[in-house]
Amino acid sequence: MTQSPADLLITGCTALVHDGQEEIEFLEDASIVVRGGVIEAISDDVRGLDAVEHIDARGQVAMPGLINCHTHSPMVALRGIAEDLPAEEWFNDYIWPIESNLTEKDVELGARLACAEMIRGGVTCFADHYFSMDTVAAVTAESGLRAHLGQAFFSSQGAQGREKSLEFALRHRGGADGRITTALAPHAPYTVDDADLAATAELAREHGLPVHLHASESRDQTDNSLARHGLTPIEVLDRTGLLDTELLIAHGTGIIDRDLPVLERATGQVAVATAPRGYLKFAWDPTPVRALRGIGVPVGLATDGAASNNSLDVWESMALTSLVQKSAEGDPRWLTSRQALHHATLQSARAVGLGERIGSLARGRRADIILVDLTGPHTQPVHDLAATLVHSARSSDVRTTIVDGRVLMRNRELLTLDLPSTVRELGERLPALVDRGHGRRIQEYDT
Amino acid sequence: MTQSPADLLITGCTALVHDGQEEIEFLEDASIVVRGGVIEAISDDVRGLDAVEHIDARGQVAMPGLINCHTHSPMVALRGIAEDLPAEEWFNDYIWPIESNLTEKDVELGARLACAEMIRGGVTCFADHYFSMDTVAAVTAESGLRAHLGQAFFSSQGAQGREKSLEFALRHRGGADGRITTALAPHAPYTVDDADLAATAELAREHGLPVHLHASESRDQTDNSLARHGLTPIEVLDRTGLLDTELLIAHGTGIIDRDLPVLERATGQVAVATAPRGYLKFAWDPTPVRALRGIGVPVGLATDGAASNNSLDVWESMALTSLVQKSAEGDPRWLTSRQALHHATLQSARAVGLGERIGSLARGRRADIILVDLTGPHTQPVHDLAATLVHSARSSDVRTTIVDGRVLMRNRELLTLDLPSTVRELGERLPALVDRGHGRRIQEYDT
Repeated sequence: MTQSPADLLITGCTALVHDGQEEIEFLEDASIVVRGGVIEAISDDVRGLDAVEHIDARGQVAMPGLINCHTHSPMVALRGIAEDLPAEEWFNDYIWPIESNLTEKDVELGARLACAEMIRGGVTCFADHYFSMDTVAAVTAESGLRAHLGQAFFSSQGAQGREKSLEFALRHRGGADGRITTALAPHAPYTVDDADLAATAELAREHGLPVHLHASESRDQTDNSLARHGLTPIEVLDRTGLLDTELLIAHGTGIIDRDLPVLERATGQVAVATAPRGYLKFAWDPTPVRALRGIGVPVGLATDGAASNNSLDVWESMALTSLVQKSAEGDPRWLTSRQALHHATLQSARAVGLGERIGSLARGRRADIILVDLTGPHTQPVHDLAATLVHSARSSDVRTTIVDGRVLMRNRELLTLDLPSTVRELGERLPALVDRGHGRRIQEYDT
Repeated sequence: MTQSPADLLITGCTALVHDGQEEIEFLEDASIVVRGGVIEAISDDVRGLDAVEHIDARGQVAMPGLINCHTHSPMVALRGIAEDLPAEEWFNDYIWPIESNLTEKDVELGARLACAEMIRGGVTCFADHYFSMDTVAAVTAESGLRAHLGQAFFSSQGAQGREKSLEFALRHRGGADGRITTALAPHAPYTVDDADLAATAELAREHGLPVHLHASESRDQTDNSLARHGLTPIEVLDRTGLLDTELLIAHGTGIIDRDLPVLERATGQVAVATAPRGYLKFAWDPTPVRALRGIGVPVGLATDGAASNNSLDVWESMALTSLVQKSAEGDPRWLTSRQALHHATLQSARAVGLGERIGSLARGRRADIILVDLTGPHTQPVHDLAATLVHSARSSDVRTTIVDGRVLMRNRELLTLDLPSTVRELGERLPALVDRGHGRRIQEYDT
């Protein structure tokens, strides 16, 4: 360890780390030394080390920042607008008509509100798949968060949709001091035709870009795809070459047994993001996490947009993944708290293509760190720290959120974003945003 | 309205009230006047009214305090001690061996920690079913909470168990300035024999006491009961006369179609408490809320003990009830946010026998009120306030908790209980409490 002042020193915490077999371990009374945005050391002895900024984290757990592996951040503007509806009505009668009103300013305010919510909830990185992504990139830069961004497109936009998605991905790759990574972002196999998907796969390979899309979102989609094409959505991804790219599949609740060997051939390139709350709301099956685990496909945690999930609370996604998987598999021993924490850390980092850079508190990783306060009555006593984190703690117990060594929230106070003005400005725009009197919609949900 | 100073005046809030058909309504810019522990008025005009205590609740929602309809409060001491296990192992290998070590002091500290957690989570009343209930009653009095208490017993204790449960119920009824109500508390039909259940039913009728017990907790219990006795657990309650008492059934996830006409005959006397988190963890079915609704049986919200639920977070039980019911029924339109709020308010109040006293913000009801802050980024904007409350807000958004007009938490600060000393003292006792080396257990789980 060099002895010049570190940028940031966190002392006295219990640190969640991974051992050589990726098992979760907890280091008591640990110190974390950050320099140049990177974790330089995790140590039990930092005597004599100075730091520009020092956080005394006694009574707190330091863990890798949460990663929201699939969201549409500006949709926080539509939180609660379309409740208690099947997915078809949710899309066709509310979301897609309303999204035809969307302006750059709405996206800016929505993304800023979303970043505020995520920082407060201990999220340090989010994978966003939406429109007007230049604006989301600008808000990401402003917020201090890390993000994996893709400009969404439908085939109804013609070749221009795909070209704009590529142009965005190339222009913003490495943006925000390296915190922004990018992906090509076709919407889904039911809104992007096979030729367009195949062209996307080619562009991805040519430019070394990952692809982020919705696929096999529900069992209905799989059944409809089989009826129309004789292929499942996963088989469509295979046939169009997308499984030969670095691919992030959102949801995958409609993945069936015949998809597993197809996905297995793509192991190492493909990952799935699961957002369990919305599946319960839409009465969809859960993502088949156990089957995906069996073939080595990482499953990252996500919230989807707040218009279906009602929050961007990845902590809740972690708890729900454990609860729902136990229930779905009929097995209380499955998806333990340590497994849930593995999904929340390394598997989520891999899902967004950052498996070597974030997702673990280890020397050389980017310093994306959250500090979680366990002194509240709901988290005491602690018999099993992994269980306390997954099943007793809440996102509101995150006190400090750090990305690339920069503190974005300290003692629950947001340091980079102005929440009250964002809420006020967004509120003024809502009547125009949610108007559906025009009868337009940006797309038709018909899988 | 009398014009002498009120005890408490809450102004500027949005108040959750019920209309004549029990539909949820929200009154904007409402004021709540409290006098003598009772809501004297909910008004939009309190000009000229003085009050001893005034809370400016602009930006907050006032709603009836949450009711935890079934818990074992001292079990917070065992939070996280037995994870990822089927119910049999959870009981036989961990909980019942550990509970054989339980002392009065453990119960006192556990109950105090539980009350702190509940007050912080917006719970104003809890139904507790445990041992050493004199101690729980004393902590209830100290905490300022309202409680419905029963001294649990097994038939393995002989007639003495039942007699002690009766003695407790008679002695504490009306305690803590009327905040304590009591019940007879046989453990369950699989641990209390038919003669003992029948004797309990008789005592209940003789003394005008309600009965609170576990029954039909899982489908396995129902199947085992059918195999052994040819009767479901609900039919056992019927045969032993318990359905002729005011009866609170915890869980009921094993309630099957043939139980419905049996329960329907007891409508008005019987209620079920649902604690959905633990059912997911144990891979049990959910409580059949829709079927119970069909026959008019109220379903109150609960957490069970924290040894299975990991928290006493009734707010989470409310959200999970909505989510799990949609999923289980395969119907996104079922169990709307307004329905969830009805379960959390009037149905929960009825479940604990307090349907005329609490569960609604209305003139003449006891002033059990919580104030919920919706200014956080995760609860903005508000398109549908019921959805915001159920699906976006969290228990940590409760800022103020009031019981009988007395403020127990103000701006998240606990006013009646000393949390740090409770956690410290409990921590010192844990090694002795969790020791299982003795090989004893208080009971055998064998349904």
